[in-house]
Amino acid sequence: MIIVCETKATEAQINVIEQKIREAGLQVHRSDGVEYTILGVVGDRNRLDINALALMPGVRDVVPVSTPYKLASRDFHPEDTVVNVGESVQVGGSDVVVMAGPCAVETAEQIETSAAFAARCGARILRGGAFKPRSSPYSYQGLGVEALKLLRQAGDRHGLAVVTEVMTIDQIAVVSEYADLLQVGARNMQNYPFLTALGQAGKPVLLKRGMAATIQELLMSAEYILTAGNPDIILCERGIRTFETATRNTLDLSAVPVVKHLSHLPMIVDPSHGVGTRRFVAPMARAAVAAGADGIMVEIHPDPDKALSDGPQSLTFAEFEALMNRCRIIATTIGRRFGRAK
Amino acid sequence: MIIVCETKATEAQINVIEQKIREAGLQVHRSDGVEYTILGVVGDRNRLDINALALMPGVRDVVPVSTPYKLASRDFHPEDTVVNVGESVQVGGSDVVVMAGPCAVETAEQIETSAAFAARCGARILRGGAFKPRSSPYSYQGLGVEALKLLRQAGDRHGLAVVTEVMTIDQIAVVSEYADLLQVGARNMQNYPFLTALGQAGKPVLLKRGMAATIQELLMSAEYILTAGNPDIILCERGIRTFETATRNTLDLSAVPVVKHLSHLPMIVDPSHGVGTRRFVAPMARAAVAAGADGIMVEIHPDPDKALSDGPQSLTFAEFEALMNRCRIIATTIGRRFGRAK
Amino acid sequence: MIIVCETKATEAQINVIEQKIREAGLQVHRSDGVEYTILGVVGDRNRLDINALALMPGVRDVVPVSTPYKLASRDFHPEDTVVNVGESVQVGGSDVVVMAGPCAVETAEQIETSAAFAARCGARILRGGAFKPRSSPYSYQGLGVEALKLLRQAGDRHGLAVVTEVMTIDQIAVVSEYADLLQVGARNMQNYPFLTALGQAGKPVLLKRGMAATIQELLMSAEYILTAGNPDIILCERGIRTFETATRNTLDLSAVPVVKHLSHLPMIVDPSHGVGTRRFVAPMARAAVAAGADGIMVEIHPDPDKALSDGPQSLTFAEFEALMNRCRIIATTIGRRFGRAK
Amino acid sequence: MIIVCETKATEAQINVIEQKIREAGLQVHRSDGVEYTILGVVGDRNRLDINALALMPGVRDVVPVSTPYKLASRDFHPEDTVVNVGESVQVGGSDVVVMAGPCAVETAEQIETSAAFAARCGARILRGGAFKPRSSPYSYQGLGVEALKLLRQAGDRHGLAVVTEVMTIDQIAVVSEYADLLQVGARNMQNYPFLTALGQAGKPVLLKRGMAATIQELLMSAEYILTAGNPDIILCERGIRTFETATRNTLDLSAVPVVKHLSHLPMIVDPSHGVGTRRFVAPMARAAVAAGADGIMVEIHPDPDKALSDGPQSLTFAEFEALMNRCRIIATTIGRRFGRAK
Repeated sequence: MIIVCETKATEAQINVIEQKIREAGLQVHRSDGVEYTILGVVGDRNRLDINALALMPGVRDVVPVSTPYKLASRDFHPEDTVVNVGESVQVGGSDVVVMAGPCAVETAEQIETSAAFAARCGARILRGGAFKPRSSPYSYQGLGVEALKLLRQAGDRHGLAVVTEVMTIDQIAVVSEYADLLQVGARNMQNYPFLTALGQAGKPVLLKRGMAATIQELLMSAEYILTAGNPDIILCERGIRTFETATRNTLDLSAVPVVKHLSHLPMIVDPSHGVGTRRFVAPMARAAVAAGADGIMVEIHPDPDKALSDGPQSLTFAEFEALMNRCRIIATTIGRRFGRAK
Repeated sequence: MIIVCETKATEAQINVIEQKIREAGLQVHRSDGVEYTILGVVGDRNRLDINALALMPGVRDVVPVSTPYKLASRDFHPEDTVVNVGESVQVGGSDVVVMAGPCAVETAEQIETSAAFAARCGARILRGGAFKPRSSPYSYQGLGVEALKLLRQAGDRHGLAVVTEVMTIDQIAVVSEYADLLQVGARNMQNYPFLTALGQAGKPVLLKRGMAATIQELLMSAEYILTAGNPDIILCERGIRTFETATRNTLDLSAVPVVKHLSHLPMIVDPSHGVGTRRFVAPMARAAVAAGADGIMVEIHPDPDKALSDGPQSLTFAEFEALMNRCRIIATTIGRRFGRAK
Repeated sequence: MIIVCETKATEAQINVIEQKIREAGLQVHRSDGVEYTILGVVGDRNRLDINALALMPGVRDVVPVSTPYKLASRDFHPEDTVVNVGESVQVGGSDVVVMAGPCAVETAEQIETSAAFAARCGARILRGGAFKPRSSPYSYQGLGVEALKLLRQAGDRHGLAVVTEVMTIDQIAVVSEYADLLQVGARNMQNYPFLTALGQAGKPVLLKRGMAATIQELLMSAEYILTAGNPDIILCERGIRTFETATRNTLDLSAVPVVKHLSHLPMIVDPSHGVGTRRFVAPMARAAVAAGADGIMVEIHPDPDKALSDGPQSLTFAEFEALMNRCRIIATTIGRRFGRAK
Repeated sequence: MIIVCETKATEAQINVIEQKIREAGLQVHRSDGVEYTILGVVGDRNRLDINALALMPGVRDVVPVSTPYKLASRDFHPEDTVVNVGESVQVGGSDVVVMAGPCAVETAEQIETSAAFAARCGARILRGGAFKPRSSPYSYQGLGVEALKLLRQAGDRHGLAVVTEVMTIDQIAVVSEYADLLQVGARNMQNYPFLTALGQAGKPVLLKRGMAATIQELLMSAEYILTAGNPDIILCERGIRTFETATRNTLDLSAVPVVKHLSHLPMIVDPSHGVGTRRFVAPMARAAVAAGADGIMVEIHPDPDKALSDGPQSLTFAEFEALMNRCRIIATTIGRRFGRAK
């Protein structure tokens, strides 16, 4: 951390600042320049409150040279992290991994049909909501544990790993029993007690970016899980809120190369929630693969018009198959592998 | 709800739409216009998925005439709700209520001094963090139950009700033991299982607007608590995230008159978190009162430069006293009462 | 347009509303439903102020069924518009067209080298700034007419059409003398007198989306040019402003399929300005092609570190060549053609 | 400016960076710390491209210690600037100045009635649009020069100065003939050739913040006018674009204390355009005065429901009078004077 003092800072003010830094157990190195005095701080920046320092008399600017996250940073861990999901899927390696399935698990037949088709087209992980976070208390809230069982059975039958959302600390145990990957929804991205609990879950976590979260905040939330002991985190871009109303959210695909630059963690994209309308899902899924995502998560439904939840953003099977065929070529073009159709 | 059909919608398409509405147990009334066929839907709109309807063949537009919230709506409950906090404080009536205190409870002396001064200036509710949500796992996380006790003692000694943040379902019981008003932080605004649990807490709730939440979503979150059985909700504007970086967030004061128009629930403003810098807090606190807020929540600290958490946004006692004197006149100007200095 | 009256609207209020509509020369058809009275308005919606109607006593909601733009709408003009740029380039047809060149024209050698390399890799249009809009009055402002001449010469020598920004009505004539395509910068997107003047320019226009413009507003600005008589408009996504600070702007790639759905006009993407950092340009350029853009506009520079303007976002020649090779395969994958390398 | 080198920067890389700085005519002072080498740059920062520096090999961070604007900065000009408008109005001094009038000048009677009432309630400047920037080419575009004459006559008759919008360089001369204060609309805030022309207009300028402009960019645009020779600039907050849709824009009142802190220029607020709905204008106007604005600009209309432009946001005369009486007390409370009612 570097502290730039004001041109007119007095010697007394500078001394107070230096003392505050030393009291926090850090070292300070002073450099008197022509225009400014600069204080270089050596040690753990988390022991000082940057905002508080910035308001001290005589301080012009505080520059946090290092990032506020450590374990999530590529500086700390230069090689890409590869996360094992279930017994045979690896996210963050050379494969671009497809997660597909309905928004919500509705019936045994619906999830079975979806799993069969997803597997046939090359998807490796089956998705499906059991507990649904809904902004209206009057909306469909999911089938719960019954859905978890159906999901697991369908996944096993077709050689797919299983991902589903967990919403509370209480649910972690039961969801872990059935799922291979625990999804944290955008609204829970900064639920810190929950993140800490997930650090001890013993299962990999799929952490979705909050609707108004910066990339740095996404990495700080990953840091919570990492410091609590769980190294297996997959990040997910799913759209941020902007003033644009033509799409549900604005899918920030540039987050993919930015995260790959700043962090070693894998990053996937969920275009279905980002755009919210079926006809815009396939172009954005292709774009995500072209931008270098480690995977995509796509909603499909055997009969989208009859879906109980978010049907309008689910692809039909035919649309999904066409998408998979195109993504396979795009992935290959940038040197990635893509699940074979069976 | 009103459904506008496309100009070229076929009779068969319109029939399918009408059938879908009737299957959901709603009535539909058709009106064939010169340019458009319009279907008027009568009944509970929550039984239909608007997004799904909007994508059906033949549909041009779906207009949700009614609001998605009911209990929180002024249509449903025309008179202002007045929330009792502790034994003697009423929020949402003619008084503009001031909540003041340090960001985090640090020591017995700090909270005692703050409570004494806040009460002397006319504040009615003592604030202070016991459990702190911090974006970094390396930051100060609060004193926990020990802080709750100190807060309660200081409040009692000076005739102040007590508000503090509760972060998890687990904490509701213990926080309710000590606090008169349960604060829900911005990051928990859409934590639905938590909101449902608060509906059975038996204590009033202070619900902060999420950083990227619309006003409608804030009211939907209130609806969760209301439907779960708790009618005592105070809403709080604390800044939304925008592209502007000169302030921590952008305090959306227009949310005050908008919420008062749409809902019967009281609405207060927290300028300290909104702007994040001491020198901008007082102007925005005055502006909040002028805009018609039912209260303000202000951070004060006996020695802000030594605060362990968010010191730079805390007012000194002298600044707070000057602010209170000015707010008193502003409140009176718009026909509100304001706590007397003792 | 449809007007939904309030449940408790009086007969007198409804009559006043009907009269106001008829006074504007429009027809009104009334339908009394079980819950609401609905007024269907037939005729040109631009003759009524929707906001004014919405505030009339007895009005609950005004629903603008039609779009506010006509000539730019796909309803009005179902086939894709193909814009001819120069003698041999067509934007909006089956080819994905690449526009490349330096941010600013600096020297004859710089633009000549860039043009030669761009042409060799398959670009069809040469870009280069002559008049630069700079947010600081102290920044480099461009070479002006001298740059236009250099650009034209380099374009002609290598069989490239030429695009450059025009900033004022005064500059339209001179820029039209040298350029084949007139670029309107994001900051001028809602400069209406300027748009009207461009409607009479006799040259195609490249209209960039404003940093805070919605897609509908972009199409409204195109409507200004179209109504003034110029049918040859290419739209361009170049990033919108959000709270994210890791990239200069947030490139909204979903605007590509949305615009292609709503309008017949071609849409290209400028990833260089959107992300603002070289290392993120290529992934986003590939993503733009995968999302279905009709073209991309990429900054290249023979020696980016020495560029006078926006060097950090310019690709080196080697990076550009690799990008072109990948985009060619991606374009083919989705059924588009892509300029052959010569 | 301070350049922080990467921990692993080589001696050769640091030498290249130092050389680049010296080539730009600036001095550089090197300080080798324990963790980082820091280069302090002395001289005019506008001679270096910060983005380009930031991308040089070996550079970790570039810290622009000084602001990019000079003439607009309070560091450069510590005392408040007071702008004379017409013969007797001063904006930026102890008076809070009210500008009132209709959105658009429609008829002689409308503007005469509005001017008479505005003056009677204590307004000092008459507003009214002659040239209207409209997002639709089909909307009402204003009366032009005829409106300017009516505005001038009504102002003179009632002792009011006159402000109206100027949209193009061409219009500056004719508008200057009739108006005392030249308004620059939000959409023109970054129209740099226009700003430069206004620097030579010889009349004070009211510069509105762009819908997506940061405060720093607003001050940079003021810098354009200042460097071109015009010291008389009044800034105006009128709402920024956010994801919130309940109001037209989000009025960022915190911009008032922030601008007063960073700059010496006066700052007023236009609540009418910010919220877009009559019922929310008065609370936000009061809040603007309480936040310390040097003035407010309010739309009034003798018969808002019949207004040709933006009627729904215009206050009735009765609402305006009540607002003025309340603002007078609020202004006095914070030590400002407020126009006497006549």
